[in-house]
Amino acid sequence: MRMVDLIQKKRDGFALSKEEIHFIIEGYTQGTIPDYQMAALAMAIYFRGMDSQETSHLTMAMVQSGETIDLSPIKGIKVDKHSTGGVGDKTSLIVAPLVATVGVPVAKMSGRGLGHTGGTIDKLESIEGFQTELTPEQFFRNVNEIKLALVGQSGNLAPADKKLYALRDVTATVNSIPLIASSIMSKKLASGADAIVLDVKTGSGAFMKKLEDAKALAEAMVSIGKELNRQTIAVISDMNQPLGYEVGNANEVREAIEVLKGEGEAGLTKLCLTIAAYMTVAGQIYPDFDSAYEELDKVLRSGQALETFKRFVQAQGGNPEQIDDPEKLPQASFHVELKAEEDGYVTQIDAEAVGIAAMLLGAGRATKEDTIDHAVGITLRKKVGDPVQKGEVLAVLHSNSEQPAASINRLKQAIVIGKEKVNKLPLIYDVLQ
Amino acid sequence: MRMVDLIQKKRDGFALSKEEIHFIIEGYTQGTIPDYQMAALAMAIYFRGMDSQETSHLTMAMVQSGETIDLSPIKGIKVDKHSTGGVGDKTSLIVAPLVATVGVPVAKMSGRGLGHTGGTIDKLESIEGFQTELTPEQFFRNVNEIKLALVGQSGNLAPADKKLYALRDVTATVNSIPLIASSIMSKKLASGADAIVLDVKTGSGAFMKKLEDAKALAEAMVSIGKELNRQTIAVISDMNQPLGYEVGNANEVREAIEVLKGEGEAGLTKLCLTIAAYMTVAGQIYPDFDSAYEELDKVLRSGQALETFKRFVQAQGGNPEQIDDPEKLPQASFHVELKAEEDGYVTQIDAEAVGIAAMLLGAGRATKEDTIDHAVGITLRKKVGDPVQKGEVLAVLHSNSEQPAASINRLKQAIVIGKEKVNKLPLIYDVLQ
Repeated sequence: MRMVDLIQKKRDGFALSKEEIHFIIEGYTQGTIPDYQMAALAMAIYFRGMDSQETSHLTMAMVQSGETIDLSPIKGIKVDKHSTGGVGDKTSLIVAPLVATVGVPVAKMSGRGLGHTGGTIDKLESIEGFQTELTPEQFFRNVNEIKLALVGQSGNLAPADKKLYALRDVTATVNSIPLIASSIMSKKLASGADAIVLDVKTGSGAFMKKLEDAKALAEAMVSIGKELNRQTIAVISDMNQPLGYEVGNANEVREAIEVLKGEGEAGLTKLCLTIAAYMTVAGQIYPDFDSAYEELDKVLRSGQALETFKRFVQAQGGNPEQIDDPEKLPQASFHVELKAEEDGYVTQIDAEAVGIAAMLLGAGRATKEDTIDHAVGITLRKKVGDPVQKGEVLAVLHSNSEQPAASINRLKQAIVIGKEKVNKLPLIYDVLQ
Repeated sequence: MRMVDLIQKKRDGFALSKEEIHFIIEGYTQGTIPDYQMAALAMAIYFRGMDSQETSHLTMAMVQSGETIDLSPIKGIKVDKHSTGGVGDKTSLIVAPLVATVGVPVAKMSGRGLGHTGGTIDKLESIEGFQTELTPEQFFRNVNEIKLALVGQSGNLAPADKKLYALRDVTATVNSIPLIASSIMSKKLASGADAIVLDVKTGSGAFMKKLEDAKALAEAMVSIGKELNRQTIAVISDMNQPLGYEVGNANEVREAIEVLKGEGEAGLTKLCLTIAAYMTVAGQIYPDFDSAYEELDKVLRSGQALETFKRFVQAQGGNPEQIDDPEKLPQASFHVELKAEEDGYVTQIDAEAVGIAAMLLGAGRATKEDTIDHAVGITLRKKVGDPVQKGEVLAVLHSNSEQPAASINRLKQAIVIGKEKVNKLPLIYDVLQ
């Protein structure tokens, strides 16, 4: 088999076989297939696509390129959750303790964020003492006892994906549905999940700007799950504005705690309950979505999920007092208010721009080497569709510098006020399974 | 400017600007743009194409990536000729002395062949003592005195093309019209020609199997010539069977001498006269094609062109006695006849297979390191459309081994005899200028 012939085959629109795909991924991982041939293939895939079988073979080849996590020491059906990423997305902080409370074991690997805002680990590290370096024994014990533990991504999971992603990033081949789908799914499968609930974001603040692209990605991932016998459910949700009110790290933890008390913003709460309901159905805790949703809603209001969250934090070295009193989480020195300059309605809150404004305050990383300031961030006071009056506060910047001009400017442009009343944005567009 | 953005621009179907193309080619030549980005771009160009302006900018950027030959010491309009390659293609051996005889200065750089049969230099090296290493002074003096000199490609002409071609070869991106056109034209322009006549081959034995592809390539090259103010004429000619009767090296020189005596095979002679006529019109020797063709036909029959060829050979150290008596050119030890096994008509002579049969005898190079046996080759006794009788000789293998079984088998399969009469193949499909 010669790589050049396989590139040509894909270039000419033919499907690659399982053997051919494994040959490519093994050769690329081992370095016998050079970057330049892989780059040409990636561009050919960009133009020609891959069918669901090819995409599944690619996913499995990437899983098999490295280590896989054996979660068999954990009892029950392990259900993982993945979001394609958005601004203000703190759903993992809420959903994980919620489903753990009703008995779904959550053995989560998470990453740090690169870009506008932090990743799940960055957010949790707002809590004093919280740490994610657990021995495998601690990790498994915590999952079995509390049903929830979280570690940083370590080891050599799907190294072919890591190498291929880095290559795609510099060859304009990121934006290919089969390549995105197999990248996400290979990491999830290597992490040992039995079932996966995906939160596929769409809108101006998401990687998939168009709903049809988000649907295509969701379909591709659900199809991989089917081919590989791992139940996979994709919720397609809105990212035309930030999720909830808070964007940052400590402030997102505070908002998560509010939701865990049953007092959170309605949209965020609904999305968390939806994802959690699908996770518990996949985990065979409840027979169907509707009953799951109803029960989980009760669990939230009962405070049990917050209790699980606190136990989880404590088990990983975090200070539980900060959960009891979220005001004790890191606070910024300055609170700068952004006020409406006219009466009207909020017609747009550009999620990406809000994310960048938060990053400029120090809530995210522009480069891998940047450190995160957990105290800073942005609190929105309005959502799209809300009426505003001149002088009313639209958002508060939590800043450790007195006049964060760049961030203020960015935020000012992000929030658009119009004269005409607009509808609230939809939250969930579709669910594929 | 970032290469990844330019790849994306082309990927999305936009035209690259002159500045962008020069940035790419300079960076690639200098090594600041890595192979993997260039490979992704080449594949994007494969799918999206390039317009005539982009193709011209690419050509000039490749010309400017290295040295260019200054032919100003040569008087007159320098007209170069290029063939996209075929089996039995000895036109340069005929056309060059023919146009030189009537005053067109031919300062030719040629390559050695890789593949079925030798290149022009390999063929000329059949002649005892012939050598192509001339000092620039010798080269220019010979062109001014004899109007014809030929040197091997040396120096650092269009290094970007060399590097890009090697990359395309292993990334399935060879077969792209703008990339082929700019590759050919950059080498010709770097060699200093004022005008160029292209012989674009089409058919089973050519790189461009389909006439429409050959036309597209010809159009692209003529268009580059227009954009860059170098008169360019493309003759589209047949390569569904070998050109003339001889395939090899010494035997091709013998056939060229026959044509130069006015006694050559009709089709080969016609193609040479056609190419030469366009060259002499471009060189402003004759006012139009028809009068040029007529005059050149006379020149051929007069023996003057053969005289020029002999002077040229002698000036480059070759033994003129072998031109006077071509039987003195290297001869193989064995002559194996391939005979018709039935009555009928020659319906097909697969040019590529004949080329491979000749290569198996030793007439070509499978790898760069192979040496050529100038004495071996194949003489066809029939052309497509000719009637044959059982037992009649179809071809003769000039071999230095007694039973060249592999070559015989290949040749046997290449020549197809049918019961129905078929027409002779057309020779010239189109001329673009």
